Amino acid sequence: MSETYIEAPEIVASSWLNSERPLTLSELRGKVVLLHAFQMLCPGCLLQGTPQAAAAAECFADEPFQAIGLHTVFEHHSVMNPDALKVFAREFRLAFPIAVDQPAENSAVPVTMQKLGLQGTPSLVLIDKRGLIRFSRFGQVSDMQLGGMIGQLLAE
Amino acid sequence: MSETYIEAPEIVASSWLNSERPLTLSELRGKVVLLHAFQMLCPGCLLQGTPQAAAAAECFADEPFQAIGLHTVFEHHSVMNPDALKVFAREFRLAFPIAVDQPAENSAVPVTMQKLGLQGTPSLVLIDKRGLIRFSRFGQVSDMQLGGMIGQLLAE
Amino acid sequence: MSETYIEAPEIVASSWLNSERPLTLSELRGKVVLLHAFQMLCPGCLLQGTPQAAAAAECFADEPFQAIGLHTVFEHHSVMNPDALKVFAREFRLAFPIAVDQPAENSAVPVTMQKLGLQGTPSLVLIDKRGLIRFSRFGQVSDMQLGGMIGQLLAE
Amino acid sequence: MSETYIEAPEIVASSWLNSERPLTLSELRGKVVLLHAFQMLCPGCLLQGTPQAAAAAECFADEPFQAIGLHTVFEHHSVMNPDALKVFAREFRLAFPIAVDQPAENSAVPVTMQKLGLQGTPSLVLIDKRGLIRFSRFGQVSDMQLGGMIGQLLAE
Repeated sequence: MSETYIEAPEIVASSWLNSERPLTLSELRGKVVLLHAFQMLCPGCLLQGTPQAAAAAECFADEPFQAIGLHTVFEHHSVMNPDALKVFAREFRLAFPIAVDQPAENSAVPVTMQKLGLQGTPSLVLIDKRGLIRFSRFGQVSDMQLGGMIGQLLAE
Repeated sequence: MSETYIEAPEIVASSWLNSERPLTLSELRGKVVLLHAFQMLCPGCLLQGTPQAAAAAECFADEPFQAIGLHTVFEHHSVMNPDALKVFAREFRLAFPIAVDQPAENSAVPVTMQKLGLQGTPSLVLIDKRGLIRFSRFGQVSDMQLGGMIGQLLAE
Repeated sequence: MSETYIEAPEIVASSWLNSERPLTLSELRGKVVLLHAFQMLCPGCLLQGTPQAAAAAECFADEPFQAIGLHTVFEHHSVMNPDALKVFAREFRLAFPIAVDQPAENSAVPVTMQKLGLQGTPSLVLIDKRGLIRFSRFGQVSDMQLGGMIGQLLAE
Repeated sequence: MSETYIEAPEIVASSWLNSERPLTLSELRGKVVLLHAFQMLCPGCLLQGTPQAAAAAECFADEPFQAIGLHTVFEHHSVMNPDALKVFAREFRLAFPIAVDQPAENSAVPVTMQKLGLQGTPSLVLIDKRGLIRFSRFGQVSDMQLGGMIGQLLAE
């Protein structure tokens, strides 16, 4: 792949779940990062994207790989608040770190979601070991394709 | 079936979704009623019980049949509130009537859930055309078995 | 239902699996009969219809109900022969009785399949306790709908 | 990975499907090869392994990748013969090349299956661009894990 990739912007989070301290992409250099942008009540997230992110976290647990959830609430903010997310994550036994995307001051779309230019949820962003965005997709990706991309990035 | 069945207690709801006015079991005499007790963030509800109730509503739309959701919140009350339920129902395109079970004064378990003696969510209650409880089950039931029971009650 | 139904024609089989002796519809009066017409290498049978017939046999095991497979080979006869069917039934652990539809003399379509007027495989035929055909469908039926129809016929 | 891998033994086939001429592993140097050993009437093959091999063939169609089916009949030989396989492949719309493993003279287990030391069906063998066996597994592998392994081998 000879394209020129941009560096992933840093995650801006108002809080974190399943992580004792905030994670930064810069400290994750050397690891492949899967960023799963979701809203807890979005059906495509809940039924497909979020279980897939959890499966990736488990499948590549022994590799230099980090799955991170990014709760990018851009609608129904009062309902999908951090307390609700905490219950959701516990009930669905999500174990990977989840960042609550920082609400923006003048927009319903939160800060990191804006910086990543995501169109909706679920969105999947793959960041290589150097911190470059190698894949960004709104919607579904098959497990086979996702595994294939992660495998290729792990081997770089 | 020669057993003696008890009459289903009336639904006590603080509000309703997908229904212009409150439904009562007494006005539903002559119809088979499926009562699906759920909590919006309970995985067994969201992934199995609630879609099954929706499928039953559609499958038996031309029969004297009524599916009713009963949102029996007994934990995380502040998160699974009526506003959250409204968003959930819209996002998951639930079209059948849903009663918000009336919170109890001295218990985390809401009123109708107590009266029905349900053990948790999801629970499924089948009420025959005379208003008698013919089946009550905590947990999963296959579509085939549920269809079979509804069919038998419809034929009475 | 006030329609006039025709009586199901008798099964004409060259051999049987999973039954010590040939079954006849006339001796099954008083039972609801599900006839699952299939070919062992038809994907819609193998992936949906046949497992569904097996599930019905199990679900209604305590009821006056009989599931019967009807191996209606109308193409690739040399490949889907009775020996192959035997291996198939054992490998897929089919336990319900299966009739091998009698090959016809002047047609690729076997005898019972012709008499039932079936258009292809899988086809589902429901026969009531009096021996009347109440439902005949080429293609898929949901478990919920099938359960509902069986339940209604059982209650007659 | 610093282990020493053995070279994959050449495929010995009595015939091929979906390929105008026999394929050899030696001519596939430079490509990652997925070898899917199966029997057409083995449920774990038919329901999981074979569709997975087909999905891999499609997912990695633009990569230096080749999926090959290996019909390793070690039981019920007369039923799962090449004619039956041909019908099966057509009915299930399998498009990737399939080798019929050469029957052995003194064993029910065919030649290539013996050389690969496979324990049963389905078995999955991954061969890297140099022709070395990098993974061999009897039973199921998730799509995510398989994708990950293929991706890593493609990147070498």
